[in-house]
Amino acid sequence: MDKVTVSDKFSLIQDHWNPRIVGELNGQYVKLVKFKGDFTWHHHDSEDEMFYIVKGRMIMKLRDGDVTVGPGEFIIIPRGVEHMPCAPDEEVHCILFEPMSTLNTGNTRNERTREQLERL
Amino acid sequence: MDKVTVSDKFSLIQDHWNPRIVGELNGQYVKLVKFKGDFTWHHHDSEDEMFYIVKGRMIMKLRDGDVTVGPGEFIIIPRGVEHMPCAPDEEVHCILFEPMSTLNTGNTRNERTREQLERL
Repeated sequence: MDKVTVSDKFSLIQDHWNPRIVGELNGQYVKLVKFKGDFTWHHHDSEDEMFYIVKGRMIMKLRDGDVTVGPGEFIIIPRGVEHMPCAPDEEVHCILFEPMSTLNTGNTRNERTREQLERL
Repeated sequence: MDKVTVSDKFSLIQDHWNPRIVGELNGQYVKLVKFKGDFTWHHHDSEDEMFYIVKGRMIMKLRDGDVTVGPGEFIIIPRGVEHMPCAPDEEVHCILFEPMSTLNTGNTRNERTREQLERL
């Protein structure tokens, strides 16, 4: 039973929009992901999704407005709610907490879809 | 759908070992708790528990050794594993992720047990 040092794991990630698994509990995964630029509009039919920001400033675009989320802040996107995470300025380091079944692009599939996630 | 600024919520907490609910997703709660001193040995029969530290240094005592967990680090305690979180030096600010069913003192009940948790 080891602790995980989040910054050490982030230093192993060189790409964007490609979540890695760093923990597992109660049918949920803890994932780390780096964002830069815009993602893609999507929703998750049956998964709520938590974004906890450790570095940078994410704009979470929602159909009824944007929410800026910075270091030490989190936002929970309930299932069914369309959203698009964006990092318009600097690179964002984000911890995701979501069910193991969650696909990163939700109800859509495109070049950003990651079916198999690496474990760090 | 609002973001949560974790430091703002922690500033509302004046006591120790009394978790508050700050988020809910997929049958799990996100809780904030301040630690100081020793807790109590316990385990959870059917819940895995994640401790993410944002301030201070927690010693997670386990039957086979201690693990020190500092800011930006987390540890996952699987169900059934006896543990005792301690903050021997400074106050620790911790984010917990665990099923909504989780009782803070697990299989034990004592003066530290919190049956009803406040939402912040």
